[in-house]
Amino acid sequence: MESDTHLDHEELASLTAEAWSDHLATLPADEVRAMLAQVEPDRLAEVVRMLDEETAGRVIGLLPPERAAAVLSHLPDETAAAALGRPALQRAAEVVQELDPDDAADIVAEMDGRQRDALLEASGDAGDVIEELLYYPEDTAGGLMTPEVLSVRRQWTVGEAIDAIRRRAMELEQIYYTYVVDRDDVLIGVVTMRDLILAPTIALIDDVTKPEVVSVSVDTDQEEVAEVISRLNLLAVPVVDHEGRLVGIVTVDDVIDVIQEEASEDIQRLVGAGADERIDSPFLYALRMRFPWLLVNLATAFAAASVVGLFESTIAKLTILAVYMPIVAGQGGNTGAQTMAVVIRGLALGEIPVGQGRRVILRELGLGLANGLAVGLFTAAIAQLVSGRPGLGMVIGAAMVLNMALACAFGALIPLGLRRAGFDPAQASSIFLTTVTDIVGFTAFLGLATTALRLGWI
Amino acid sequence: MESDTHLDHEELASLTAEAWSDHLATLPADEVRAMLAQVEPDRLAEVVRMLDEETAGRVIGLLPPERAAAVLSHLPDETAAAALGRPALQRAAEVVQELDPDDAADIVAEMDGRQRDALLEASGDAGDVIEELLYYPEDTAGGLMTPEVLSVRRQWTVGEAIDAIRRRAMELEQIYYTYVVDRDDVLIGVVTMRDLILAPTIALIDDVTKPEVVSVSVDTDQEEVAEVISRLNLLAVPVVDHEGRLVGIVTVDDVIDVIQEEASEDIQRLVGAGADERIDSPFLYALRMRFPWLLVNLATAFAAASVVGLFESTIAKLTILAVYMPIVAGQGGNTGAQTMAVVIRGLALGEIPVGQGRRVILRELGLGLANGLAVGLFTAAIAQLVSGRPGLGMVIGAAMVLNMALACAFGALIPLGLRRAGFDPAQASSIFLTTVTDIVGFTAFLGLATTALRLGWI
Repeated sequence: MESDTHLDHEELASLTAEAWSDHLATLPADEVRAMLAQVEPDRLAEVVRMLDEETAGRVIGLLPPERAAAVLSHLPDETAAAALGRPALQRAAEVVQELDPDDAADIVAEMDGRQRDALLEASGDAGDVIEELLYYPEDTAGGLMTPEVLSVRRQWTVGEAIDAIRRRAMELEQIYYTYVVDRDDVLIGVVTMRDLILAPTIALIDDVTKPEVVSVSVDTDQEEVAEVISRLNLLAVPVVDHEGRLVGIVTVDDVIDVIQEEASEDIQRLVGAGADERIDSPFLYALRMRFPWLLVNLATAFAAASVVGLFESTIAKLTILAVYMPIVAGQGGNTGAQTMAVVIRGLALGEIPVGQGRRVILRELGLGLANGLAVGLFTAAIAQLVSGRPGLGMVIGAAMVLNMALACAFGALIPLGLRRAGFDPAQASSIFLTTVTDIVGFTAFLGLATTALRLGWI
Repeated sequence: MESDTHLDHEELASLTAEAWSDHLATLPADEVRAMLAQVEPDRLAEVVRMLDEETAGRVIGLLPPERAAAVLSHLPDETAAAALGRPALQRAAEVVQELDPDDAADIVAEMDGRQRDALLEASGDAGDVIEELLYYPEDTAGGLMTPEVLSVRRQWTVGEAIDAIRRRAMELEQIYYTYVVDRDDVLIGVVTMRDLILAPTIALIDDVTKPEVVSVSVDTDQEEVAEVISRLNLLAVPVVDHEGRLVGIVTVDDVIDVIQEEASEDIQRLVGAGADERIDSPFLYALRMRFPWLLVNLATAFAAASVVGLFESTIAKLTILAVYMPIVAGQGGNTGAQTMAVVIRGLALGEIPVGQGRRVILRELGLGLANGLAVGLFTAAIAQLVSGRPGLGMVIGAAMVLNMALACAFGALIPLGLRRAGFDPAQASSIFLTTVTDIVGFTAFLGLATTALRLGWI
């Protein structure tokens, strides 16, 4: 096995997950170190994701602290926490000291209380900073921010500000924006690096400060922080406490993660999967997150079935109704889902101002009606041709127009209503929608059929 | 109406869409200018979105060119193009000159050929730069980049580089990264602003250059550009041509738009809505995008219905089967959609390496089986209790376990298969999925019921 350590770059790149796992778990420490030294942190993070906890911990323990920190910052928080919990305490503390405090806080938040306390205690000053960050909920600006932010005073010169940046350049997460505060640390403006290098070094900060600085509060929701940074094309946004004092900064890279997270949440919540389930989440976690919504869906399915039950005698008279029944319900479900997808993205992108909901619902009702007329007419013609019953064609066509129009209206109404009621607009929306389209579809189709039968039209 | 121009900030903030539209269309130019001067560009963009084309054009024509450009850059490209096409050519050209070239290219790309050519001609040098950008497809690094990028040579001193940045600071979209090129303009490294301000001004660029610079090619897909910037936490990535020459830069703010766009595309494609339909897209556009997929869905619904048709005589004997039929199909559809949402996000985030597909499918099959057993058993018990037929409970339970297990397997298989075949993994996946869950659900349930009836078990 010795020759394995002489793997070159290309050979390393083509190693399978199993081979990596095997090498990292069994080779002597020196050889593992030599292997690891050849791989970039982001690629290494992909490898560590596939390892069992113990081997992942070994890798983190054997890497130089700075590289270990870089690898951890590319991992999902739970995976990083599990790996960081393995090496000796002093070693783990060295890694913590190399992490950006906001990343470190997210990772240690996943550890159990005693392990976390011991690790932060061992991490000295860095531990104290992280401890403070843990105070804020993870999905707020406070939970997202790093407290390492440079502030200057308006009385300083540009030269003094540049010197201050230079002194702290290595620890600052970004140096592009420098924030101006008053004597109480209250945020009063911002100076960009562009302003600083354009101004003469003896100019006063006051002369280059832009007073209209956009900030967020420690308890601003992360989605809103992302919206501000993305709308204003910022590289970072300052975070202030309730007295307006500058306490940290959220950078654009954290916001990208938030946007990706929210996109996953929207699409997964829509169908009742766990908002933060990932493709490599534990089996039981995935099961536990999905199961309750399947039960909700079952309950709504029974409600729809009981509608069908009301018309059992009609179906007994004309069993072909059972054949067309799913078509009416299914088309409603599909067209309503189209509406819902567009509305949920509109809400996520902030494109539907409060008060504009009615306009959106009416537009969708119109779309549903138009598509319903086209699809309904087409289906009616086919049903009539195939079954040889003109009455059946008319019943199915009318039921489809009604169901598709209402499906689109409800496809907009459900997420808008959920938002107004203070819930996530995507939460299980598609389950609620299917309930509506099944019940409306079955009632309209079987109800019309019952009447038509009674009148002798079918 | 005259007093309206004395509206203060707060009054302006509370104006309705109709009032804005009314004021902007009817007031004299001077008064409109006074109104507009009080509103920030990003807020103004929200207002312009709600206006008709003519009024929007009036606003763009009356704003100072720099502010007009800021407003346009916050608008969807089509809306911006329509508004920019209204003012006099020379005026529009002044606005174009103030836009970042990459934004300008996206906007003029939406105009018709003659209008675009005239505008670019009138825009002078800026027009030439934009013309070159139009050469690249919109969804590639070339289409996304701005060509205004600063490059320096390794022989320069740090002081010379800072002077160069200072001279071009106002036109550069970012000054944080400076790229190092050789005499053929081939990209050979990167220097960050941090490196520059930490180094003595007489140091050589060569001494502070990091040679391991990550770049993308002009024809790299925008999704991959976003993935690189997001994975490596970059503020920008340089774009090179096929000879490795530096030709532009893509900044993180453009990438955020790409990520949002791709998230919209995924969730909307999933249900067969147009990938780039927005909540304010024209009615006919929305209709045209959604209709074809409704026809596809109709075709698949007829396929599922024909399965039911095969069992018409069974349903005629036992009409209660028509009542439970939608439950079996619906639960399969829902649990399969849960899988699909997680898999599509996993693909979007690059978390499913090629070759790992089989593992994902097996995992999902297991999840479907586990949830199927739980939900199936529960449903069987209810069906048995309500109908008083033990045989019916067993038939429905067995059909649900089978359908839910296969639903999850197909929920993973469909997007993975679409990706392997070179399609978008989300494209109408949910329509294909429902086809599978309907056909499997109906066949299993009605098939088992037919056999059970024949054997006298129900």
